[in-house]
Amino acid sequence: MGSLTTNTFSSLDSDGFTTDSKMVIDFIAEYYKNIENYPVQSQVKPGYLLTKLPDTAPYCQESLEDVLKDVTDSIIPGLTHWQSPNFFAYFQSNASTAGFVGEMLCTGLNVVGFQLDCIPCSYRARIHCNGLDGKDAQAPIYIFVLRKWRWFYASDQTHSTLLKGVKLVGIPSSNFRCLSTSFSSEFSLSPQSLEDAIENDIKAGYVPLFLCATVGTTACGAVDPVMDLGKIARKYNLWFHIDAAYAGSACICPEFRHYLDGIELADSLSMNPHKWLLTNMDCCCLWVQQPRLLIESLSSNPEFLKNNASESNAVVDYKDWQIALSRRFRALKLWIVIRRHGIANLMFHIRSHVNLAKRFESLVAKDSRFEVVVPRRFSLVCFRLKHNDACKASELNRKLLAAVNESGRAFMTHSVVGGLFIIRCAVGSTLIEERHVDDLWKLIQEKATDLVEETGAIGD
Amino acid sequence: MGSLTTNTFSSLDSDGFTTDSKMVIDFIAEYYKNIENYPVQSQVKPGYLLTKLPDTAPYCQESLEDVLKDVTDSIIPGLTHWQSPNFFAYFQSNASTAGFVGEMLCTGLNVVGFQLDCIPCSYRARIHCNGLDGKDAQAPIYIFVLRKWRWFYASDQTHSTLLKGVKLVGIPSSNFRCLSTSFSSEFSLSPQSLEDAIENDIKAGYVPLFLCATVGTTACGAVDPVMDLGKIARKYNLWFHIDAAYAGSACICPEFRHYLDGIELADSLSMNPHKWLLTNMDCCCLWVQQPRLLIESLSSNPEFLKNNASESNAVVDYKDWQIALSRRFRALKLWIVIRRHGIANLMFHIRSHVNLAKRFESLVAKDSRFEVVVPRRFSLVCFRLKHNDACKASELNRKLLAAVNESGRAFMTHSVVGGLFIIRCAVGSTLIEERHVDDLWKLIQEKATDLVEETGAIGD
Repeated sequence: MGSLTTNTFSSLDSDGFTTDSKMVIDFIAEYYKNIENYPVQSQVKPGYLLTKLPDTAPYCQESLEDVLKDVTDSIIPGLTHWQSPNFFAYFQSNASTAGFVGEMLCTGLNVVGFQLDCIPCSYRARIHCNGLDGKDAQAPIYIFVLRKWRWFYASDQTHSTLLKGVKLVGIPSSNFRCLSTSFSSEFSLSPQSLEDAIENDIKAGYVPLFLCATVGTTACGAVDPVMDLGKIARKYNLWFHIDAAYAGSACICPEFRHYLDGIELADSLSMNPHKWLLTNMDCCCLWVQQPRLLIESLSSNPEFLKNNASESNAVVDYKDWQIALSRRFRALKLWIVIRRHGIANLMFHIRSHVNLAKRFESLVAKDSRFEVVVPRRFSLVCFRLKHNDACKASELNRKLLAAVNESGRAFMTHSVVGGLFIIRCAVGSTLIEERHVDDLWKLIQEKATDLVEETGAIGD
Repeated sequence: MGSLTTNTFSSLDSDGFTTDSKMVIDFIAEYYKNIENYPVQSQVKPGYLLTKLPDTAPYCQESLEDVLKDVTDSIIPGLTHWQSPNFFAYFQSNASTAGFVGEMLCTGLNVVGFQLDCIPCSYRARIHCNGLDGKDAQAPIYIFVLRKWRWFYASDQTHSTLLKGVKLVGIPSSNFRCLSTSFSSEFSLSPQSLEDAIENDIKAGYVPLFLCATVGTTACGAVDPVMDLGKIARKYNLWFHIDAAYAGSACICPEFRHYLDGIELADSLSMNPHKWLLTNMDCCCLWVQQPRLLIESLSSNPEFLKNNASESNAVVDYKDWQIALSRRFRALKLWIVIRRHGIANLMFHIRSHVNLAKRFESLVAKDSRFEVVVPRRFSLVCFRLKHNDACKASELNRKLLAAVNESGRAFMTHSVVGGLFIIRCAVGSTLIEERHVDDLWKLIQEKATDLVEETGAIGD
């Protein structure tokens, strides 16, 4: 032990790197080819893997073939297959060849970009590509640490991570003003109810501080009115954050850009290319109007990180835009996705999914047993089996969703809006084609028919 | 536009995936082959890339060849090459073939593991693999949100991210008790000074809450006495966190494990396989004695994430162990690194670096112009050119470090301990061989000779 010459194992020689990596490329390509053969949602019981794998790490090296065999036999059967074209759950997590090779370059170069980042930025804005979250709504909240009497506003449709972020910086949940939305406004936040709440809070002696608007909510794809909310935020001097995690990608298409009208009033905006813009996990873009405020809250300047560039303020030290010190070179990945696709193909990608969602929506509309619960937004369709009795309707749709998912042929998730249990069909897999939407609908109809036979007629 | 059949570009077809990915594999292999030809530290001026790249994203797709040409011509010359065997700065960021293919599988499968994670865990402990930070010291701090009169203790050698974490959860920096260390204790935190500080704070009416010990500090590799500090933590009921980000990897070797004696007294421990355990960025392991406390602080349970498994409490929902909701499958990467190397090769890897650091230390010791400032720990050697005048010594060593780094032939960084400016030689590149250490030393000697000629004799 201890001598460099007695060991024949090399962790990173060029030949071994090439051979092993290409074997894994073939493995992954094969996985994509067969992906429709797997049950979409994981069908295993929690803990099943513990019995399949050894208790201790091996003393000697094992072959890549053995490791890949275990991935095939033990890991893959335990997964939910997010890349399946039959995945319609949550929001999509788009993989692409360009995103993959971008990640390979990031991982191969393996640089730690906390400082001196000379990152290409197509938009000449200061956009921070981090991996913090599927919903990075909480990022700018860091700014508000230590401010007392803080008051936060968002609709009851806002993502749960906003509240998590608020709690994290030491602000009581009771300072979070959760404003009700309803079917009448398609679950969009009403500017009037916001202004009323702010006025009431001011009268009660509180200081309004932060407003989060969402473009494309998780539950049903609702869009808050950015322009009107932004004006209120300016009037009362609130920080105005726009969470466009999901639908921000759609706004590369001119026909969706109006949803961001008023964006110039925002203090910050986040969107996730790792959801709908073909950039493999993880990549979240955070734009901040005045980066100085974020940096003042998060900067640290220990001796070991000081250098001429950092001292000169000539560079953007992204470590001061985030919690962590270490950073992966995620911008490289997004840059490659944009260049390899070009805006034309990226718009085509978005529009294809929107068109498939429209197709699904029209299929639902044609079957009188079903209803589309809120108007389709982007590529998310929210629907349910109709029933006169609200309690029975929830139960029925819960059963329908379980039956679809347990079949392994597709995977959708649910949400509850306006007190109604609804099924969400989130169209967005990179590999999706028309036939997958058609098959999904057939599957749903089939399971609905079975259910009706079991449980008796559906009220109408 | 809008029809699925008019577009010939496929984002993720198997053939394109294989061809493109293998081209990038060859590209990265070539990069590793030539890595010694690049200046180790980036030599470009901040902002240089802005002039090299277009202002706007392309409308049409570009070829992978064109993109890779720009990576070669524009991106790579702007990088600091962390994988260079001549990289001796900060702490290493180990790439390996196993880590790379593990990352490829993670990225290829592209699953979002926030729930229902059936992750293999070699140690049957509940270890959370996240990417939060190079130093995840702050992670368990989330637990302390909203507790008043909180008091934090750590040595003046603790990593800056601890203070960042404390600020983040809304605790004033003034509640952070930074305990002095010195040459006499090799910059290790003195249990007596800790206990004195705690006693004084209690008398003043404060409630001590959190103690962070470090095994292998960033500035000089110092090790705090885990057992003695742990006993004090128990006595006063403090949360006891061990930050073993760097040196935790070394503790896989029996001869280093004694540094963790007393670990059973810890409430949490973090270490970074992405530093010294051949796991490409990012992978940070966080162990928590009572996960319940972390989960209670961070859990959220929105409707759209509810399912039978999450409701049954039969699974570990890792979303509740972290800030973000989304999670990459990093455990897969670490698991492959462990299996492909086996413990034998991992220990060999650590010992090789320690032996090379010993070699460097003995080279420094043989040249009377130099001194090793603190005893070498693990693979970190802290040294400097001697000078009678403290101010001139700092200036001299600053110039020496700049001369070495500007040569492009190696990259080291500095720190300041006990008021002294010291140069850090952190041995740890995956690709390092004996000759790189010898060349580094020759380079340092050569630049030192130049400096002495320029500035006159060095006092002794």
